[in-house]
Amino acid sequence: MIIDVRKNILIVGLGLLGGSYAEALHRYGFHVSALTRRQSSIDYAMERGIIDEGAEGVDPELIGKADLVVFALYPHIFIEWIEENQKYLKPGALITDVTGVKCSVVYKVQEMLRPDVEFIAAHPMAGREVYGVENSTSRIFAGANYIVTPTKKNTPDAIETCRELGLLLGFSQVAELSPEEHDEMIGFVSQLTHCIAVTLMTCNEEEHIERFTGDSFRDLTRIARINDLMWSELFIANKDALLRQMELFEAQFDKLKAMIRDGDVDGMRDMMRHSTERRAKFDKK
Amino acid sequence: MIIDVRKNILIVGLGLLGGSYAEALHRYGFHVSALTRRQSSIDYAMERGIIDEGAEGVDPELIGKADLVVFALYPHIFIEWIEENQKYLKPGALITDVTGVKCSVVYKVQEMLRPDVEFIAAHPMAGREVYGVENSTSRIFAGANYIVTPTKKNTPDAIETCRELGLLLGFSQVAELSPEEHDEMIGFVSQLTHCIAVTLMTCNEEEHIERFTGDSFRDLTRIARINDLMWSELFIANKDALLRQMELFEAQFDKLKAMIRDGDVDGMRDMMRHSTERRAKFDKK
Repeated sequence: MIIDVRKNILIVGLGLLGGSYAEALHRYGFHVSALTRRQSSIDYAMERGIIDEGAEGVDPELIGKADLVVFALYPHIFIEWIEENQKYLKPGALITDVTGVKCSVVYKVQEMLRPDVEFIAAHPMAGREVYGVENSTSRIFAGANYIVTPTKKNTPDAIETCRELGLLLGFSQVAELSPEEHDEMIGFVSQLTHCIAVTLMTCNEEEHIERFTGDSFRDLTRIARINDLMWSELFIANKDALLRQMELFEAQFDKLKAMIRDGDVDGMRDMMRHSTERRAKFDKK
Repeated sequence: MIIDVRKNILIVGLGLLGGSYAEALHRYGFHVSALTRRQSSIDYAMERGIIDEGAEGVDPELIGKADLVVFALYPHIFIEWIEENQKYLKPGALITDVTGVKCSVVYKVQEMLRPDVEFIAAHPMAGREVYGVENSTSRIFAGANYIVTPTKKNTPDAIETCRELGLLLGFSQVAELSPEEHDEMIGFVSQLTHCIAVTLMTCNEEEHIERFTGDSFRDLTRIARINDLMWSELFIANKDALLRQMELFEAQFDKLKAMIRDGDVDGMRDMMRHSTERRAKFDKK
């Protein structure tokens, strides 16, 4: 273990994810502090005993004490925060994040960052359909994946610390991808699926769907309750990879449509068997 | 109640659905018999005590005793069965089915049926990713929807009996649609969702998806494990409605794609808010 429980951890952005990080890390005995927009979130986290101290907005003293800073902010707010406040960071501090897109964030932050501070990026793939520190719980990490996305600028120590953080938080799997690989993968497994769910939920204005649906429609639209502010930002920030994945999906959908139109039962059955095999393999893991 | 427990019910096709019907109805005290392809399914159902008697293939005597016959067969097998064996049906018998498409089945069967027998069609919207009587359980009906699809040829008594059957089986909601409305609705909520899941599971050959997925990909591809024989038949049997629904979906997907490409954040957020509202309404019901 590289991470030492005597380390001082600062969470910037005490929402669902930030709060869940705080809960998990405080339990290990780390000194956990937090900065966030609303004083009420700090109050709630103090009452619940998941942080040791906290403040609204920016607090140079709290920032200057932290050995490890976790940014749980929207991408553009994270970048602005670094521009304006990196001067307060402790020399030698390690910073990490939870941002769902990487290329458009990682290189920009590493480029502008002070040379005596290191940024190692990560994407904890956990969430809920509800928001805010009031809904935070480290249970969301169980069974979930955590992806570290190092670049050439990162040191082996920072990469290892970031992996350990994922394990400490309780993630079931810690993987490593380049920012480019990450964005392509996330464009597929996460962003494309959200695009599909939103599309499915809005493409047919039928009023009484709930009287006629089975589980399939319910499953495919669970994520159609979506944080429009966050996801529209994430989609734009990963535009190229997402558009590529949308086009792959459409090309395959068109193939299936042509088979249905032409009555090509053999072609359909081949595609369905392939789908069944891939999904079964997935279930085993 | 029109259905009388002294009635003799015959189930033709003892798979997952047929077996689940048998279990539910036998519990009420109906005399339940079954005909199916494999003797081993009959043996299993007898041992489990969910049918009173049964036979492999066609048994004129069993057929002739039944007041109510439930067909739990693939569409084309159901139609063939009627052509070949309706001569054995008891005068005045009522027949119903579980077929997932209606227009291509209901009119054909009603057209060819003896005048002294009535066919009232229904679609129990329940299922599992596993097959066969060995996996049958009437628990799959709890919380699910049952749709009766009468035509002008049906009598009020038959419609009422079919609705009662849905309630007896344990469905949470019994609805009524014309065969045309049913097929359009099912093209949307069930067939389109299966097309999407199969497409999503096969559009990107990435090998290690499971290391990088959250719940969203898992949810959207659960039904990608699909019975290729049954679903390819259902898709073809409902081709026109399904193609219409696929095109509605694609048109909306293209709108979203254009917004992402053009950086139209306001447009995206509008669509996402609409999606969130519609899904929230759905959750309440």
